[in-house]
Amino acid sequence: MTVTIKDVAVHDVRFPTADAGDGSDSINRGDYSATYVELTTDGGPVGAGLTFTNGRGNELTCGAVTALAHHVVGRSLAEIADEPVAFWRSLTADPQLRWLGPEKGVIHMATGALVNAVWDLRAKVAGKPIWALLADLPTAELVRNIDFRHLSDALTPAEATDLLDRGQQGRDDRLAELRAVGLPSYTTSVGWLGYPDEKVRALTRAAYAEGWRAMKMKVGGALEDDLRRARLIRAEIGPESLLMMDANQIWDVPQAIEHMAQLSEVDPYWIEEPTHADDVLGHARIAAAVAPVRVATGEAAANRVIFKQLLQADAIGVCQVDACRVGGVNEVLAILLLAAKFEVPVCPHAGGVGLCEYVQHLTAFDYLRVSRSLTGRMVEYVDHLHQHFVDPVRMSSGRYQLPSAPGYSIEMKPESVARFSYPDGPVWR
Amino acid sequence: MTVTIKDVAVHDVRFPTADAGDGSDSINRGDYSATYVELTTDGGPVGAGLTFTNGRGNELTCGAVTALAHHVVGRSLAEIADEPVAFWRSLTADPQLRWLGPEKGVIHMATGALVNAVWDLRAKVAGKPIWALLADLPTAELVRNIDFRHLSDALTPAEATDLLDRGQQGRDDRLAELRAVGLPSYTTSVGWLGYPDEKVRALTRAAYAEGWRAMKMKVGGALEDDLRRARLIRAEIGPESLLMMDANQIWDVPQAIEHMAQLSEVDPYWIEEPTHADDVLGHARIAAAVAPVRVATGEAAANRVIFKQLLQADAIGVCQVDACRVGGVNEVLAILLLAAKFEVPVCPHAGGVGLCEYVQHLTAFDYLRVSRSLTGRMVEYVDHLHQHFVDPVRMSSGRYQLPSAPGYSIEMKPESVARFSYPDGPVWR
Repeated sequence: MTVTIKDVAVHDVRFPTADAGDGSDSINRGDYSATYVELTTDGGPVGAGLTFTNGRGNELTCGAVTALAHHVVGRSLAEIADEPVAFWRSLTADPQLRWLGPEKGVIHMATGALVNAVWDLRAKVAGKPIWALLADLPTAELVRNIDFRHLSDALTPAEATDLLDRGQQGRDDRLAELRAVGLPSYTTSVGWLGYPDEKVRALTRAAYAEGWRAMKMKVGGALEDDLRRARLIRAEIGPESLLMMDANQIWDVPQAIEHMAQLSEVDPYWIEEPTHADDVLGHARIAAAVAPVRVATGEAAANRVIFKQLLQADAIGVCQVDACRVGGVNEVLAILLLAAKFEVPVCPHAGGVGLCEYVQHLTAFDYLRVSRSLTGRMVEYVDHLHQHFVDPVRMSSGRYQLPSAPGYSIEMKPESVARFSYPDGPVWR
Repeated sequence: MTVTIKDVAVHDVRFPTADAGDGSDSINRGDYSATYVELTTDGGPVGAGLTFTNGRGNELTCGAVTALAHHVVGRSLAEIADEPVAFWRSLTADPQLRWLGPEKGVIHMATGALVNAVWDLRAKVAGKPIWALLADLPTAELVRNIDFRHLSDALTPAEATDLLDRGQQGRDDRLAELRAVGLPSYTTSVGWLGYPDEKVRALTRAAYAEGWRAMKMKVGGALEDDLRRARLIRAEIGPESLLMMDANQIWDVPQAIEHMAQLSEVDPYWIEEPTHADDVLGHARIAAAVAPVRVATGEAAANRVIFKQLLQADAIGVCQVDACRVGGVNEVLAILLLAAKFEVPVCPHAGGVGLCEYVQHLTAFDYLRVSRSLTGRMVEYVDHLHQHFVDPVRMSSGRYQLPSAPGYSIEMKPESVARFSYPDGPVWR
């Protein structure tokens, strides 16, 4: 690991998805985009990372990567591996930049792109996919990569050590299982709000035929529309399949409780983002009211301190960590361990650009070393934009097949980066 | 109000304060900076607003203002006043930009600069300082300016109406009092972490002689250093004056409780930011443990949803809203009303660049129309950088004198903007 990072290149890559209604929900409607980072090295491979955004404003996350880049340039992988928390804090606790967060929004999403690029580089140098690199690390090494500041009231290094040590037991059997059958998944491609009923029905039927037994729909429109679409999907998938609902934060707390009282008719498995992403206490109130329907959230949860509280307050029954909204692999490790301690399954957020590519690694590692269970674990799947990646996800019968190429599967094809670069790529000119 | 906004100019203004140790605390050390916004109009005055940052990264909040500016350009004040929540949501719920928050960090701080500039313009057109413009608005008009989405479990429009109607009673008497004696205040200029003991002693002595009877020191260094400095200040100010402490988020929850058990020896009035800004449950645990010392927080609280929870959870005894980290006047109104409902005094965050200029208006309005009490209310004061404002704060015997010029007192002198513009102003070249 004598590889040294020489330079950080950042690309503003945007896909014109807004017009098609793909990705449309009660709050968001955008051009799926990536703040795409490449770390060039002195003779080693290129480290790739990205943070997903919704289009306009991608120049801000790109700008934030540039503002943080000097903490990365000139560092060797050996140095970073030697003092991982010091490296982490150089990015997250910069005495001038921290004011812009702390650890949230634009500045933290940029941190996620950079930190993930460093891990991609590290995995490529090791010749392993990230899930394997992490699963093979000694417990002490994994624990050393976590910043426990502001977590110690919920998770101590000793508790993390204990969880990860237990994760060594039976690991080979679990790995054999993953290699044989892949990772369980669910699809979000059937029920975007922008789709008419006929399209929802056709997509649901096709997904069921492909082997999907868990599907997610968007809610948060008029109650009667939500209910009609939910009945339509439930009729297609039968009573045994899982139907999840996603409100994308549109409701107030009392409204979420009222709407779910009606929507519970179709037996939803979870309600995702029922209210504002920051509202830990609100999620807790909703969770108590809608049980046994689970509350799921995480794609807009800013950092480990928010996840800590969601878990402490019994506010979530499903933890949907995002691979790049939080500050990358190091923070995801903390969140996986927190979720394991509080016995809440992690079903990571995916879709967008590259999120499926990222999170398959996280769930594989979680199963191998942390949760040791697949019960209630599913990786979100959306069938958009995979063609732009060098090592895209591979699906079979509604399951993710374990990736095998070294790295974090997040490297984009140079021709895609060039074609969709904003504002000068041919698609945008 | 037929004035129409023609253009948004944004200036990256930075003051080289880092080297002097001014503003140094356990987490932050920066070049106090402003993302300074000017709204030009068709023949009307210029609306001014700013968001405060800590130096590096100010280009990101400037970039975010540019990304949001199209929601402001071309709007008339009449149109904005007619549908204030629609205007607010055009900025905070932009279907592409919301992903970068939601309502937090860079994107929300930029919203604060723009929204405040619109209010500055509105007040200038009305020929009133903001505090008077707001205090004179009918209750229904004030309520119409608040977005109650995600608040209704804690504050309804009817409750807000009731609070503001009660604020009409005795308003003239309270105004006469403010005109006569000004607003109570405390000073943060005596105890920055970067100052040696002798400087702390000299500054404390000078402040006491000037009439200050409430002073704030920074803590979060080694416990023995904090204690030594606290004893030094307490010895200078005597047992009757208030001594406040500010940890700037450095501690974990258990550590905050332990340190405060020791620091309580000097009878602190409040402990500010004892742990991570996002940790509502952590603040609640600390508040229960350190009582009767109050927990204060808010300068890094991202939005009204965080304040709602801090109040619901009994996590704070002092609400320190910031005028521009949240999205400006409309959101501050919501937070003042929430604090009043939960009977928590508001002592707004100030210092930095222009924050004192801003918050004097907020406290005056809060007293006149919302809280109707000055008990426990103090406006923070720091004696930095006021010379760069056209209508700077005026202090007398440790009290803010009520501002009288039309607007929000946030207009900067053109020569200061030119001189400190980054990176091309003469100070930075």
